[in-house]
Amino acid sequence: MPDASLVVVKVGGGADIDLGAVTADIATFWREGHRLILVHGGAATLNDVATRLGHPPEFLTSPSGHVSRRTDRRTLEIFEMVYCGQVNKGIVERLQRHGVNAVGLSGLDGRIWEGPRKDTIRAVKDGRQVVVRDDYTGKVERVNVTLLRSLLDAGLLPVLTPPAASYDGTAINVDGDRAAAQTALALGAETLVILSNVPGLLERFPDEASLIRRIPAAEVARFMAVAEERMKKKVLGAQEALEGGVLRVIFADARVPQPVRQALAGKGTVIGD
Amino acid sequence: MPDASLVVVKVGGGADIDLGAVTADIATFWREGHRLILVHGGAATLNDVATRLGHPPEFLTSPSGHVSRRTDRRTLEIFEMVYCGQVNKGIVERLQRHGVNAVGLSGLDGRIWEGPRKDTIRAVKDGRQVVVRDDYTGKVERVNVTLLRSLLDAGLLPVLTPPAASYDGTAINVDGDRAAAQTALALGAETLVILSNVPGLLERFPDEASLIRRIPAAEVARFMAVAEERMKKKVLGAQEALEGGVLRVIFADARVPQPVRQALAGKGTVIGD
Repeated sequence: MPDASLVVVKVGGGADIDLGAVTADIATFWREGHRLILVHGGAATLNDVATRLGHPPEFLTSPSGHVSRRTDRRTLEIFEMVYCGQVNKGIVERLQRHGVNAVGLSGLDGRIWEGPRKDTIRAVKDGRQVVVRDDYTGKVERVNVTLLRSLLDAGLLPVLTPPAASYDGTAINVDGDRAAAQTALALGAETLVILSNVPGLLERFPDEASLIRRIPAAEVARFMAVAEERMKKKVLGAQEALEGGVLRVIFADARVPQPVRQALAGKGTVIGD
Repeated sequence: MPDASLVVVKVGGGADIDLGAVTADIATFWREGHRLILVHGGAATLNDVATRLGHPPEFLTSPSGHVSRRTDRRTLEIFEMVYCGQVNKGIVERLQRHGVNAVGLSGLDGRIWEGPRKDTIRAVKDGRQVVVRDDYTGKVERVNVTLLRSLLDAGLLPVLTPPAASYDGTAINVDGDRAAAQTALALGAETLVILSNVPGLLERFPDEASLIRRIPAAEVARFMAVAEERMKKKVLGAQEALEGGVLRVIFADARVPQPVRQALAGKGTVIGD
């Protein structure tokens, strides 16, 4: 049974996203009596800080052409500094300043997000296949619904960020869009909003005039072919959320004024009902 | 009515403190059925990271000779990276690896620690008095007991760190020892353990053979004169905790094996019963 009063919002970590506008909009929405969970990224800041700390980002390309962040132990540590420290607390503070009692948590805390760590990653380097064994990545399979519900019931707004916890308690880098999708479906949220620095799913990326406005839930899979690299995980997340009972997933622009309100009004790509 | 089953442990942020030993000891203690809240610092790591990010630490000396960290907005941001990101999630991960479901939170989250921000700070610079207005520091006056109790009741171990929230929702740097004292008294903890890189309160700092073993609660105030700079806040915190109903405060060494167990066995300076 979907929970009509609960919305899960994911906001990306692009450099051109104004978190001030996003949090102001969320605060208004919250004060109107809606309940919300916010999930965020921080990729652009991470790349910047890691470079300044002398450990610049590296990316792995899988044999099928998929690109992912190389997350060795030092990257994981800087990841936690940026995502759980700088970005998470920056968002919590903005919400607190707006009178919203936000509580910032990583997926590691209380094992809010739990799942398997990838033992090995196959990558292509200089044309040769290599196996990477010391990477700290994985995916979310379980959500601590009890903890999140008790926070919501206490009138708190959870602000969630990777990393997640592996089943043995190790911190793992997970995709934020898919973690948000797992959160929405586990809590029975009716709507999942995924905000990033594009207006939605584009038929011909990066032509913003080619925005796809509506996708029936049953047809989402075939739009994987249209999605460019960074959009693929969002489409996959949307598919997982819809299959799990979420009624609609909305991809929308984080860079506009009132981005959550505009998304919920149908601006962007609406997948599902 | 003191809560005999609850212990609040503060562990300092000294470079020579082995958080692996501290968390392993806490995990054993926890599995034996005790309940615990852990409060931590991160000063040494902060100084290191701030320097590497090109914003080295500065300290203010008050007219009465007290030294405190200059916390401008950029320092606050790096503070959050180190305390809430790197150190807090590092501790939570260690506890999770030991099978303890820890949940890491700053005082800003859910307004766990709330209090006034200092509007102005008087400092002495090059022999002249100056007034600093853009500093983000303050003190903890209120603790969100409801949230901490609900986490404890759900079987979670809260791992808390500054910053706190000012009454208008701004992040403020607060003293970790005094925040731990406020937490212990607000929750009615019977015991507060303050671990750092000294064996306890020393009659003649830094002579470790001059350790003071017992201080009756009524006499704690006069030991302020003995305490060196960094110990003064711990003594002040102890005094506040005892006045608030905590039965005993133990200053003990964080650098030994089983530091929590040794402290609770009375190794260190025991103030109160």
